[in-house]
Amino acid sequence: MVDGGRLWKRLSELAEIGRQEEGGVARLSFTEEERAAKDLVASYMEEAGLAVREDAAGNLFGRREGRDPEAPAVLVGSHVDSVLNGGDFDGPLGVLGGIEVLQTMDEEGVEMGRPVEVVAFTDEEGARFSLGMIGSRALTGTLLQEDLRHEDRNGVSIEQAMRNAGLDPGKVGEAARPADSLAAYLELHIEQGKVLEGEDLPVGVVTGIAGPVWLRLSFAGEAGHAGTTPMGARRDALAAAAEVVGVIEEEASDTGSTVGTVGQIEAGPGGINIIPGRVDLSLDLRDIDEAVRDRAEGRIRGRAGEVCNRRGIDLSFEELQRLPPAPCSEEIRGAISAACEKEGIRPHPLPSGAGHDGMHVAELCPMGMIFVRSKDGVSHNPKEWSSREDCEAGCKVLYLTVLDLARQR
Amino acid sequence: MVDGGRLWKRLSELAEIGRQEEGGVARLSFTEEERAAKDLVASYMEEAGLAVREDAAGNLFGRREGRDPEAPAVLVGSHVDSVLNGGDFDGPLGVLGGIEVLQTMDEEGVEMGRPVEVVAFTDEEGARFSLGMIGSRALTGTLLQEDLRHEDRNGVSIEQAMRNAGLDPGKVGEAARPADSLAAYLELHIEQGKVLEGEDLPVGVVTGIAGPVWLRLSFAGEAGHAGTTPMGARRDALAAAAEVVGVIEEEASDTGSTVGTVGQIEAGPGGINIIPGRVDLSLDLRDIDEAVRDRAEGRIRGRAGEVCNRRGIDLSFEELQRLPPAPCSEEIRGAISAACEKEGIRPHPLPSGAGHDGMHVAELCPMGMIFVRSKDGVSHNPKEWSSREDCEAGCKVLYLTVLDLARQR
Repeated sequence: MVDGGRLWKRLSELAEIGRQEEGGVARLSFTEEERAAKDLVASYMEEAGLAVREDAAGNLFGRREGRDPEAPAVLVGSHVDSVLNGGDFDGPLGVLGGIEVLQTMDEEGVEMGRPVEVVAFTDEEGARFSLGMIGSRALTGTLLQEDLRHEDRNGVSIEQAMRNAGLDPGKVGEAARPADSLAAYLELHIEQGKVLEGEDLPVGVVTGIAGPVWLRLSFAGEAGHAGTTPMGARRDALAAAAEVVGVIEEEASDTGSTVGTVGQIEAGPGGINIIPGRVDLSLDLRDIDEAVRDRAEGRIRGRAGEVCNRRGIDLSFEELQRLPPAPCSEEIRGAISAACEKEGIRPHPLPSGAGHDGMHVAELCPMGMIFVRSKDGVSHNPKEWSSREDCEAGCKVLYLTVLDLARQR
Repeated sequence: MVDGGRLWKRLSELAEIGRQEEGGVARLSFTEEERAAKDLVASYMEEAGLAVREDAAGNLFGRREGRDPEAPAVLVGSHVDSVLNGGDFDGPLGVLGGIEVLQTMDEEGVEMGRPVEVVAFTDEEGARFSLGMIGSRALTGTLLQEDLRHEDRNGVSIEQAMRNAGLDPGKVGEAARPADSLAAYLELHIEQGKVLEGEDLPVGVVTGIAGPVWLRLSFAGEAGHAGTTPMGARRDALAAAAEVVGVIEEEASDTGSTVGTVGQIEAGPGGINIIPGRVDLSLDLRDIDEAVRDRAEGRIRGRAGEVCNRRGIDLSFEELQRLPPAPCSEEIRGAISAACEKEGIRPHPLPSGAGHDGMHVAELCPMGMIFVRSKDGVSHNPKEWSSREDCEAGCKVLYLTVLDLARQR
């Protein structure tokens, strides 16, 4: 079976690339740090006996052939870029776990029916260009030339950054992979939440990746003197917005599955003694069930409208993003559950509230994810932590799942 | 009686000093514009036959003697500084109204028992140094040397600005006026609210100046991923703050007189997909009845604490300012009411939610205020407007009130 010590050692080695004074890691896309991380990963792939290549978008692949080199491959992987001052596990666990699985197969002389590949995707986090999942978009052929115009905070575009890294941005189309070349996509990832901790389980079976709707709500009332305007004569944009924040919390909670978050709020003119005449707030609404999410959104829009009508406030909605959820394949969920049972782990289904490359890869082939318990649910933070035992357990479940998927089809 | 045309002409002339491209006026303290305004006002005082002098804080006085030069004087006035891009009436109406009253007395040969003075106070608005009522503080002897260290946005202190204007900041103490030199203070001012408009009255009788309590409420919860943290597992600082905004609105409204305003709110870390871990908001709470205001504050503090306990949020309060309300003198209110009746105006009592120099002068002598109807309640804005007829009506009420106060005592 998989070598938990080797996996842990590689996680530690990779985490030293881009290590920050603040304790976390920073490996932004197309930087020296990301390059060094990919080079280290490529060296592990070679140790694992894999055929290594990089595609036109910088995605790094290691491939192990099966009996039928023409058969669609099982793809396993994640990413090695990080947020600014991020943690050691978000991304690397899936890439190094995949390599560990393939190296174990190599060492044990396991012959599969179909090829298995491990991938380190380019820029999943979007921390540099505010456009994430660049590599998996390229893989599905949905990364457009206009996307490459996104700039980082120094005004460097993705296009320019790719050129600086020795890539030809005009050729990203070549990274697109035909759907019939892939049989399945599997990703091992830390949970970034507390569900498994609450269930006292090292590993969980992901049911799907929630799709976010991002809205901006703008409230226009009437600014006024805080001293001279009686309470009954106000059109206070913040009082209305505060009531709507309550509506959002209530409607999301009532579904039992949707999460609704107001992460940004701004009130103007902003004087301590001036009634706010305008408020802008953001809404992030997610569910793995699109219909449930959209019904919650409809109720929030309706009730927010009533609140604002009653208060004489003009309310407008701007849609910033609307992604459909990506449900995990029933068949892959079954394979992961069976693998959990073999490892003596009760298979626990849970959604992924965070986005992952699998959302895009799911356009090409069935997709599944295995979650590993996160200490305190913390992520994107130097305190991000999963124990060596839990990482090993997740890798074992990944191994058994790959065996199953690569053998049977 | 008073000459409404002359009053209106002087209001128009004064409004041309500091006229902005945006349509409003800007006469910040100790600037050329304020100086020019005071010079113009001094020339009006001379036309009115008054003895003109300026004190150590730059307060400009015009005095008309009565039969007893030793008797405490009736002081009438307001200010000629403005906010940035402010209106034509806030301040000037009270100064020019006072001059009009004294010029009328002069022209009609009215002999009073006691002296009457008109004052244009230095920097009531606080628009330059974030410290208002500089002149009236100096008059009451409560302007401290350390207050003079307040700086404007260019880093110029009040001290330096005074020197530049030819005043000696070390001598502001000399502007302090003994309490026994003043019998009463009267101010004619625009309402800056919509109460008189709603009552269809040109003039109102102020019951008192509300005292503001300014608090900063800080909510500390736990930041978290908007996608991976179920609704029931959140300690969302903004959800708590929003509920407290509702509590503030409810408790202030329930008193029937207190006004409560959240004018500033800031949520962090501020990512659209991050649950806010902290929120700071401001609270401005006012009433002319200190006990009512403080009871409302107590209930807000209590209920906010309960909200935060229930939600696992740490809440702290910081007191930024706490001023007692200044009730108007019953006797002066009676004199103003009688003057209204003589003019055929139903005397309507109303509070002043905004602060005025009278809050300070009330420490020296009985204080009263006459409000003039404001179109749409707008103030501190180029759209600030009171009609010529309403200004004249207010000035007539002021005239009759001064006659009453300066005659009888």
